[in-house]
Amino acid sequence: MNIFSQIHEFCVRVTSSKIFKNTIVLIILINSIVLGLITSDAIYAKFGKILEFILSTCVAIFTVEIILRIIAKGWRFFLNGWNIFDFVLVSIALMPETGAAITFRVFRVMRALRMVSSFKKLRHIVSAILVSAPHVFWAAVLLMIIFYIFGIMGQNLFHEEFPQWFGTLGETVYTLFQVTTLESWSMGIARPVMKVFPWAWCYFVPFVMISSYIVLNVVVGVVVNATSDLSDDDDVTDMKNKMKTKKVTNAELLQQITELKNHIERLEAKLDEKEAEKIKSES
Amino acid sequence: MNIFSQIHEFCVRVTSSKIFKNTIVLIILINSIVLGLITSDAIYAKFGKILEFILSTCVAIFTVEIILRIIAKGWRFFLNGWNIFDFVLVSIALMPETGAAITFRVFRVMRALRMVSSFKKLRHIVSAILVSAPHVFWAAVLLMIIFYIFGIMGQNLFHEEFPQWFGTLGETVYTLFQVTTLESWSMGIARPVMKVFPWAWCYFVPFVMISSYIVLNVVVGVVVNATSDLSDDDDVTDMKNKMKTKKVTNAELLQQITELKNHIERLEAKLDEKEAEKIKSES
Amino acid sequence: MNIFSQIHEFCVRVTSSKIFKNTIVLIILINSIVLGLITSDAIYAKFGKILEFILSTCVAIFTVEIILRIIAKGWRFFLNGWNIFDFVLVSIALMPETGAAITFRVFRVMRALRMVSSFKKLRHIVSAILVSAPHVFWAAVLLMIIFYIFGIMGQNLFHEEFPQWFGTLGETVYTLFQVTTLESWSMGIARPVMKVFPWAWCYFVPFVMISSYIVLNVVVGVVVNATSDLSDDDDVTDMKNKMKTKKVTNAELLQQITELKNHIERLEAKLDEKEAEKIKSES
Amino acid sequence: MNIFSQIHEFCVRVTSSKIFKNTIVLIILINSIVLGLITSDAIYAKFGKILEFILSTCVAIFTVEIILRIIAKGWRFFLNGWNIFDFVLVSIALMPETGAAITFRVFRVMRALRMVSSFKKLRHIVSAILVSAPHVFWAAVLLMIIFYIFGIMGQNLFHEEFPQWFGTLGETVYTLFQVTTLESWSMGIARPVMKVFPWAWCYFVPFVMISSYIVLNVVVGVVVNATSDLSDDDDVTDMKNKMKTKKVTNAELLQQITELKNHIERLEAKLDEKEAEKIKSES
Repeated sequence: MNIFSQIHEFCVRVTSSKIFKNTIVLIILINSIVLGLITSDAIYAKFGKILEFILSTCVAIFTVEIILRIIAKGWRFFLNGWNIFDFVLVSIALMPETGAAITFRVFRVMRALRMVSSFKKLRHIVSAILVSAPHVFWAAVLLMIIFYIFGIMGQNLFHEEFPQWFGTLGETVYTLFQVTTLESWSMGIARPVMKVFPWAWCYFVPFVMISSYIVLNVVVGVVVNATSDLSDDDDVTDMKNKMKTKKVTNAELLQQITELKNHIERLEAKLDEKEAEKIKSES
Repeated sequence: MNIFSQIHEFCVRVTSSKIFKNTIVLIILINSIVLGLITSDAIYAKFGKILEFILSTCVAIFTVEIILRIIAKGWRFFLNGWNIFDFVLVSIALMPETGAAITFRVFRVMRALRMVSSFKKLRHIVSAILVSAPHVFWAAVLLMIIFYIFGIMGQNLFHEEFPQWFGTLGETVYTLFQVTTLESWSMGIARPVMKVFPWAWCYFVPFVMISSYIVLNVVVGVVVNATSDLSDDDDVTDMKNKMKTKKVTNAELLQQITELKNHIERLEAKLDEKEAEKIKSES
Repeated sequence: MNIFSQIHEFCVRVTSSKIFKNTIVLIILINSIVLGLITSDAIYAKFGKILEFILSTCVAIFTVEIILRIIAKGWRFFLNGWNIFDFVLVSIALMPETGAAITFRVFRVMRALRMVSSFKKLRHIVSAILVSAPHVFWAAVLLMIIFYIFGIMGQNLFHEEFPQWFGTLGETVYTLFQVTTLESWSMGIARPVMKVFPWAWCYFVPFVMISSYIVLNVVVGVVVNATSDLSDDDDVTDMKNKMKTKKVTNAELLQQITELKNHIERLEAKLDEKEAEKIKSES
Repeated sequence: MNIFSQIHEFCVRVTSSKIFKNTIVLIILINSIVLGLITSDAIYAKFGKILEFILSTCVAIFTVEIILRIIAKGWRFFLNGWNIFDFVLVSIALMPETGAAITFRVFRVMRALRMVSSFKKLRHIVSAILVSAPHVFWAAVLLMIIFYIFGIMGQNLFHEEFPQWFGTLGETVYTLFQVTTLESWSMGIARPVMKVFPWAWCYFVPFVMISSYIVLNVVVGVVVNATSDLSDDDDVTDMKNKMKTKKVTNAELLQQITELKNHIERLEAKLDEKEAEKIKSES
């Protein structure tokens, strides 16, 4: 046993121990809480240095943790989406925070997202959402086409009079997104536009109807999928399993009864034979 | 084989080739992207001529494409709704864009809608929406009656004091549509009205309740329909199929068992006979 | 056959004729359209007299229609909710529209509601809504209790500073209804209140959560009920019927099989007996 | 029988009597109505003393009622959540309302909540909500993590320019809650922010999408749970019960048929034996 396999075995033992896992969860929580605390100017002024030190320590621990896990699992580490998720979050944390990159500091709060990957149930919920993604892909494409077409139309029609909402295609699509959420679509957007273009309701009312319907369709699709995938002990799944079980049982039943029938037919045939013999022997 | 049938065969071969279809999809996408690009004044100033040329080329190609498809399919071309959809969109593109018709230019973005007809999945989703249309027709009629009645009442009650919202029946119905989407219905509309007519909540609160409920009903109906129609390999459909299979099986089971019973009864009867004979013969 | 029964028979024949029914539907539609037309000042100025005459004629026809139907059906006329509905709407139309009652003129638009009772499908939808009413009664009571309690609390807490929203219990409940629809609840109501009472979010955020949840519960209950009641050829109903059929069949199956078993057991017993006799006779 | 057991028996008899229960319900209703009446300054000025006296009497009666129920049930009284609910509400009512505690007066309206515990159906609905609580716990945790992360990001990014919305982490989370309800999220919050930070839509649009989706997921989970738990005679439950019944029946069917088969096989074997014997005896 050489030194490398010793290190590998050590990493496997450590990363699979319960204490290691719970410690990491604890540090993730501490990291998240400290990230929350330093948003307060008063607390930052008083304990800023300590809190920044804790954050740095947390990053250091995360780095060591990821390295240990990579050594333990080798290249197979990157086959699991959640491992990649952790790896990316820790990598972001290690990026230099100087010069122009100072604006990226805000992304260190992303590390709190590790809370999601460290609880099994949360991983399940997120997985369910991702699983339903392909299901809604085409409905989302349809919505994007609608946004695109109404976006170009809206920009052409209104950009001169209302540059703040329809100035560019991007701004128009943002406005349409707002209209889709029904936020101030009429009093905020449509009525002012209708003061200049009285026919503008022909643009907004159909858009509200179409987009609301498609969004609803997407959302219902996602939810139906999510709920059916999410639950292991779910009633519907349960029912469907019962259906499956039952169906097999029913096929079995038919087979059993058919066999029965054959048996009885043979029985009957024999009795008939005996009868016939008897009659023959009696005659 | 005369010249016409040769042209016909050529058209059939061309329009059914994969390359032709993919080329058309590509051109639809290029057309859509260019329509988006020319919304930017900067890009239009620089590349306007090229982009307009691309658009014209796209229309020309679409025209040729539609002619080829019509020749290939003959009058049966117009039996398919999606073909009519394509035909109408291309026809709009060919309309002259001069004089008073300049305002129709905005409709050329409609050509981007061909993206919907060129992807099978999108066609399916749209079909599902259209299929559910008759289902919701009467609920929509009910909603329209409610809008009409509350519209006339609202116009009668409030048009003198609030002409901007309740001036005409049309404006009142638009206002009611806004109230139905719950956008600024209270702070924007109802509260100002209630300052003049303190009893106005008797008009708005029931309308919000009734219209929200009916919209919800329509929406739920559409969605239930859409989801049940959309999915070929859907779980519910699957389950229902199983039900059907099962039911047949169950009926078959009963038949089999009844036959079995008849067999056994005959068996029993024979044994009884034999017994009776034996007893008779023994006596 | 006296004169009364002759009148009765005449009324029955008339009111059950298709022409009579269709004529009434037509007059209901004309009445509704005219009610819409007279909202326009321009049209009223020009054709006001003719339109008012048409309206009066419609009321006269409705009155005659209702009398005929009452004679035809006798007291049983009032057993059907839709008949009472028509009767009340026509009665309102006959109320004097003079003096203080002039304000009731606005209610004559209610006659357009007869459109609902004259189409079978619309009656079905409305029936479905009414059928689900008891189902949601208690959830609505719960919501009303929540409104009442938060209303009293809100009035106590905020009525001095914000009399326009929380002045009386009634105004507070209206404000809470607006908050329940999520309309301007934060920017319009909660943030201004929070400027005076910084802890006011403890009042609004829980209320938004609780009321939204209960409303949703009510709504879902209604919809589930409505959809399940509404549809005669509905898939779910279909499935449930199949379940019922199947269950009976299954019970029958068991009965049949049990009978079979008894038969066979008797058969076996007989054979055993015979065997025993044989052995006895042989020994 | 000593004095204590006599008191105990008296309490049991009283508290289990229908009159006692109905009286308490009546007093709860009176208490609630009076609490509503005293919100009116006019009524309070006129009948204030009487109403306050009624309220005090109600509290006294509630206190006696709770004591009787505790004596009747002993320590087991506290095993029922609804009993604890009543106990806490009455205890709050008994708290002194002087000095700094005057602000707690507002909580006396909580006593109206006893209406919830005094109607069986309302208790059922509330129970259903509580039962579904663990089901949505993790989805709510996921939502809280999203709020926390977007909260810290938002506070970091916008607190200097928009202290009224993003000043502290708490204010930011409140703003995010408002955005989640879609109230004025764009015109009220996002657009002003985007005037200073044009890229701010990258923060708001994803947040609106993510949070709306998770809220929807939570809500759907709760509703599905609630409806399935709530209903005793519910169709779905009914169906599931039928499934269960059926499944057992099917297993039983198989067992019965298998037994049948065994019987028949034994029969056949005996007949074969007899045949063999016969042949042997004949030979």
